[in-house]
Amino acid sequence: MNRTEFVNALAKKLNVSKTQSDKCLSAVLDTITENITTEGGIRFVGFGSFTVSYRSARTATNPRDPSQKIDVPERYIPVFRPSNNLKSLCKDFKK
Amino acid sequence: MNRTEFVNALAKKLNVSKTQSDKCLSAVLDTITENITTEGGIRFVGFGSFTVSYRSARTATNPRDPSQKIDVPERYIPVFRPSNNLKSLCKDFKK
Repeated sequence: MNRTEFVNALAKKLNVSKTQSDKCLSAVLDTITENITTEGGIRFVGFGSFTVSYRSARTATNPRDPSQKIDVPERYIPVFRPSNNLKSLCKDFKK
Repeated sequence: MNRTEFVNALAKKLNVSKTQSDKCLSAVLDTITENITTEGGIRFVGFGSFTVSYRSARTATNPRDPSQKIDVPERYIPVFRPSNNLKSLCKDFKK
């Protein structure tokens, strides 16, 4: 499913227009982004939590040219930990 | 930040009441959950994508009692892959 289909499904669920639904989705994603980057995380009970995780600096190897080394600086990466509820809902997913 | 603070921030951003903001957040999280569990994923450009990932059955060891083996059945787990945009926004996070 792409974003347009998502916005349509959300509009139906909230009983609002597609424009409003799109605005609502953007606002939620933006607020999550702000929370991750400034506060270091946000937890939604029954869904999961977004946090940041530290990665120390390391020297990586260019996979296309193994003789070439790349310095990767220390950084934080965004991480999502699904709740047990979300995990159990996904468990029996059938492709 | 907890959910209440999140709902307040979202209400301010959307210029709606806290009740509406809470409904909007729930609807977005529910729609994401539905998408993961039925369609196997959803991608939000500039934010990241939610997918499901297969894990084969395995025999695990009870960490409290290593003599005890546990059969873990095959399953799907929810996975979030942050976009490059979100990753670069988090990079310089300071604790």
